[in-house]
Amino acid sequence: MTQPVIVTAVFPIRPDSRDAVVEALRTALPLVHDEPGCELYAIHEAADGTLVMIEKWASEALLDDHGTSPAVAALVGEIGQYLTAEVAVTRMTAIPIGSTGKGSL
Amino acid sequence: MTQPVIVTAVFPIRPDSRDAVVEALRTALPLVHDEPGCELYAIHEAADGTLVMIEKWASEALLDDHGTSPAVAALVGEIGQYLTAEVAVTRMTAIPIGSTGKGSL
Repeated sequence: MTQPVIVTAVFPIRPDSRDAVVEALRTALPLVHDEPGCELYAIHEAADGTLVMIEKWASEALLDDHGTSPAVAALVGEIGQYLTAEVAVTRMTAIPIGSTGKGSL
Repeated sequence: MTQPVIVTAVFPIRPDSRDAVVEALRTALPLVHDEPGCELYAIHEAADGTLVMIEKWASEALLDDHGTSPAVAALVGEIGQYLTAEVAVTRMTAIPIGSTGKGSL
């Protein structure tokens, strides 16, 4: 059975590179949003400057395709120089709970 | 200005406790969903068994209140014994990008 995949991707970046990274994301994200199976691809900023992407994909297969997309290749090319460590990607399945809609992405 | 807060909370649990923890979450989450300011409080499971909550709260103040809620106290009391390390909580602000709605929670 095909089920959605939820992803967190943690980008540890050099503090002085924040604006350059966000600029690259402003270019890349609309392209990713148009990829098949992309339901959510949203970036967030923690107090320590770490950036965290929260994603939802329609299936594992479409998420795999995203990994080789031109938009991702371009983004990696742009921001690789600003990373202080590897991007930590976690793939997950949802455990939906409750009836209000607040229990699942 | 009051702005929403996005949170990830990573629960490292003993593999043999998965069902007990999910059972406790099934009790706690509907109560949390009814707390003031809760817009999203959804649990996910990674391949290594780690559980990850993704949350959205209307404000920092309401998220602070959540931290002292009876539902959270009860949940911590139930699942504390199953944790192999502290829950890692990250508070974030969104950087909304794009016009499709896929760029923010």
